[in-house]
Amino acid sequence: MLLLRRCRSLTRLQRHQAAPCFASRAVRLCSSSTEDQRSHQRANWSANWKRIVAGVLTGTGAVVTYGLLHQEVEQADAGLPTTERSSSLPVFSHDEVTKHRSLEDGVWVTYKGGVYDVTEFVPIHPGGNKILLAAGGALEPFWALYAVHDQEYVLEILSQYKVGELSAEDLKKQGEAKASDPYSSDPERHPVLRINSKKPFNAEPPPEILTESYITPHVLFFKRNHLPVPQVDPASYRLQVEGLPRGALTLSLKDLKTRFPKHTITATMQCAGNRRSDMNQVKEVKGLNWGISAIGNAKWSGARLRDVLLAAGFGPDVAKWARHVHFEGLDKDVTGSAYGTSIPINKAMNEDGDVLLAYEMNGEDIPADHGFPVRVVVPGVVGARNVKWLGRIVVSAEESSSHWQQHDYKGFSPGTDWSKVDHASSPAIQELPVQSAITVPADGAQIDRSDETLTVKGYAWSGGGREVVRVDVSLDGGKTWQVAQLRSGDKGQPDEPSPPPGRSWAWKLWELTAPLPPDADELEIICKAVDNSYNVQPDTIPPIWNLRGLLNNAWHRVKVKVTKD
Amino acid sequence: MLLLRRCRSLTRLQRHQAAPCFASRAVRLCSSSTEDQRSHQRANWSANWKRIVAGVLTGTGAVVTYGLLHQEVEQADAGLPTTERSSSLPVFSHDEVTKHRSLEDGVWVTYKGGVYDVTEFVPIHPGGNKILLAAGGALEPFWALYAVHDQEYVLEILSQYKVGELSAEDLKKQGEAKASDPYSSDPERHPVLRINSKKPFNAEPPPEILTESYITPHVLFFKRNHLPVPQVDPASYRLQVEGLPRGALTLSLKDLKTRFPKHTITATMQCAGNRRSDMNQVKEVKGLNWGISAIGNAKWSGARLRDVLLAAGFGPDVAKWARHVHFEGLDKDVTGSAYGTSIPINKAMNEDGDVLLAYEMNGEDIPADHGFPVRVVVPGVVGARNVKWLGRIVVSAEESSSHWQQHDYKGFSPGTDWSKVDHASSPAIQELPVQSAITVPADGAQIDRSDETLTVKGYAWSGGGREVVRVDVSLDGGKTWQVAQLRSGDKGQPDEPSPPPGRSWAWKLWELTAPLPPDADELEIICKAVDNSYNVQPDTIPPIWNLRGLLNNAWHRVKVKVTKD
Repeated sequence: MLLLRRCRSLTRLQRHQAAPCFASRAVRLCSSSTEDQRSHQRANWSANWKRIVAGVLTGTGAVVTYGLLHQEVEQADAGLPTTERSSSLPVFSHDEVTKHRSLEDGVWVTYKGGVYDVTEFVPIHPGGNKILLAAGGALEPFWALYAVHDQEYVLEILSQYKVGELSAEDLKKQGEAKASDPYSSDPERHPVLRINSKKPFNAEPPPEILTESYITPHVLFFKRNHLPVPQVDPASYRLQVEGLPRGALTLSLKDLKTRFPKHTITATMQCAGNRRSDMNQVKEVKGLNWGISAIGNAKWSGARLRDVLLAAGFGPDVAKWARHVHFEGLDKDVTGSAYGTSIPINKAMNEDGDVLLAYEMNGEDIPADHGFPVRVVVPGVVGARNVKWLGRIVVSAEESSSHWQQHDYKGFSPGTDWSKVDHASSPAIQELPVQSAITVPADGAQIDRSDETLTVKGYAWSGGGREVVRVDVSLDGGKTWQVAQLRSGDKGQPDEPSPPPGRSWAWKLWELTAPLPPDADELEIICKAVDNSYNVQPDTIPPIWNLRGLLNNAWHRVKVKVTKD
Repeated sequence: MLLLRRCRSLTRLQRHQAAPCFASRAVRLCSSSTEDQRSHQRANWSANWKRIVAGVLTGTGAVVTYGLLHQEVEQADAGLPTTERSSSLPVFSHDEVTKHRSLEDGVWVTYKGGVYDVTEFVPIHPGGNKILLAAGGALEPFWALYAVHDQEYVLEILSQYKVGELSAEDLKKQGEAKASDPYSSDPERHPVLRINSKKPFNAEPPPEILTESYITPHVLFFKRNHLPVPQVDPASYRLQVEGLPRGALTLSLKDLKTRFPKHTITATMQCAGNRRSDMNQVKEVKGLNWGISAIGNAKWSGARLRDVLLAAGFGPDVAKWARHVHFEGLDKDVTGSAYGTSIPINKAMNEDGDVLLAYEMNGEDIPADHGFPVRVVVPGVVGARNVKWLGRIVVSAEESSSHWQQHDYKGFSPGTDWSKVDHASSPAIQELPVQSAITVPADGAQIDRSDETLTVKGYAWSGGGREVVRVDVSLDGGKTWQVAQLRSGDKGQPDEPSPPPGRSWAWKLWELTAPLPPDADELEIICKAVDNSYNVQPDTIPPIWNLRGLLNNAWHRVKVKVTKD
């Protein structure tokens, strides 16, 4: 608790200090070109520094482009500073290091016997103030959790901050308490998945498989984990419901299943980073390099959150002050800090909100990767709020103060870069905008001229319960448009019944078969969807580009070649 | 009632017949080039015919571009057919004409002594099946109501359908019952308004005045009338609430004011045709040629519709079957048919829906042009559903069957033209998409280079209670973007308090002051808004072009010249 409180106060401090600290550090790095013999190399290093930071800014696990990594390794080979190289630095005891656990006292960490003062790095740490959890101690257990740090250039950045060596005696003690791999008990996954990050596990299915079924089988449903998958015993599982006047309510899995009506919805879930890879090609962003399949559609069953909160004492008096509902997962980092986030109270309590504490996915127990035994399903809302392995619910007057609510999953103007981003200026993403993508044919596919017709397939969805009412498809780069056929069920099967207005949580699959345009060697195929608020997708990516690569809902485009026999 | 029932059955018939009828007519017109001496002129006429129809497709009153009109008048001068010219046609009695009042028996009308069989014109009549109201009788009273018909080319189209002459005796009788001007008692309007149509009255304020005040004064608030303004005596005014198990509830104005709590909201109202003029420039559309000011923001006070429906007997039993709430105005055409439309029941009954039966606008009695004494205010929803001069409310399992619900105020793909439009394929517009526009500087303005900075102003709004969270402004045609300052009040005054999520009904005014880009002779200034569902505006108009010119929410662009002393 003390640690959490400290983090919160530091967060406040950081907001004011972030920009100046970044600037001073950048100046220090950029003005180092005359320091020593390696001046030229260091100038290169400095010039690349911002790009490298952009690369490492991958939050809680991500892929950095091979190009950047390769460049950096080459520079290291050419004699750039490493952790081993500095020798004449003072020796510190573990006790001395532990005194530096705040921005006021300095933020020190140890790594493989080196001592580092990372105070100035704190405001620009990609993972936000979670770096403070390691303050005054060893980095190793955290890096074991966030495998993104297992990169050469991360050591390069760290080496800039070295201030001394850890005493031999304390180093020996640390070695004895070495962290084991927290991901060792993660479940098996289907080999067809395209992996974006192994630890934590993040993966998506191939697009052409994704739209083969209206209901996405759980093995193909994209996995988006922030931390190791927790092992939960369903018999001893307990959900805490807090913040209400009657005191905490504790519910077993059986309680959830028997004390509340079972409610089933078909709902599409999408990661805010879906289609980030296309945004990455416009200008580099930080985050997992998702393709177009960080989205899936499932049948979810469970107790309504509304019913549980009413049973826990939610009433008119609470409605006067309650504004948010917090969710905490059982997925925890080494300090015991859990994944957490919140949603507005009106979504939670609205009779039409359909927020579930789900214990079934597609008619079976929720699989480990999707939140066994209980996850939140907040239909129409970004995946990040659909907390898995749910451990705790808190009704509150305030939004969650978690990293994922306050310093991630927010949109910014294309003109906003890391030097001037103010997270407080932007609302946490909740409802998502209208979206669509082409799953067939694939970009770069070859079409046979003798086919005469071309079939294009894909998905379309909108957040907030808004129903997709039309998908336009162009085969000529947007000059002319044809209307695709929509369906809400598997091909050849009847559509699912239409939901009431504002409760359209599930995607539409769409298909268009059209004559192959004559004389074209290449086609640029585009899709764009319209929802029942008549919101549409923007034409191009650059004007919605944002530094985190979120919310890419520009028209999806694929190019195919038309070949002759 | 009989007449109305007939119209509904005809509507059903029409859906199937519309496309073939249009096609056959088009073929007849397009293959007429060898008919007689005027073959060349007639070919021109035929080629222009579709464009002329597009011009006349102005529904219930609109402006047709001068170019088209001029072209048509020239053709008439050159000897095209007119109503006077056919002489050897048979003479019909009024009784004979009245036998032709359906698609089965043929649809005949009379005009200035001529008899016309317009059966084939019915499916392509711009005003939809309202033309059937005139079936078997004289057109004059209808054309007096819909002044758009008072154009030379309308007579040209009519002349194509002439089948005979009305008997002299019956013609004399008609003359005695000539219609007076139904618009003679319309209220006075402010001279600053830009008039798009006089009868019915449709006008908007100049953009630079619009954003001078956060609350739009009623004299400046855009006027969008479908019919003459009805004269309503507040003392004898009665509102009928029907469709509920207790039978009809009749409420006086005093009842509305005293039996239900007075509820006030600040809500922006926008016509679906706002910014149509820009869409018109891409390719001609039908409808009033609105600029960017068919939008306004006002404080509305009245009884909640929800409270009135509960008082009228709405309960769980009704909720089982009720799906829509219909509204009928007291503005009626010559047959007594009222303006009407409907909204989904969940918007009407939701505690957060804020639908009002408003009797005050900006703290005063609602003015005549805005619905005195009572109008519906459906915040977040297109203006067309905010029925003025409210006379009747009906709770129903079905959507309104009115022209304005079924055959107008719907969006279509840019590839859909009048020959293949299927109104049943598209949902009635309810919530509107995210919108913004630049009100200062005006397009074509001159900026003095010595000014050094440039101030850009405008409005931004989104439908469905979604709050605008950011407006991006570009001074270089979209290459770079800056974030504008938003406000929810008058300049220098404190903002109005933030509404709860999902109930953000009012616009934001925005402003950006930025250095004048060096060396630019011309600037393309663009704005685009983002709402809290992170929906954005599309880049360009052509991909959202639709035959009715509705829902233009593409980036707004103005070009200004930078001049040197």
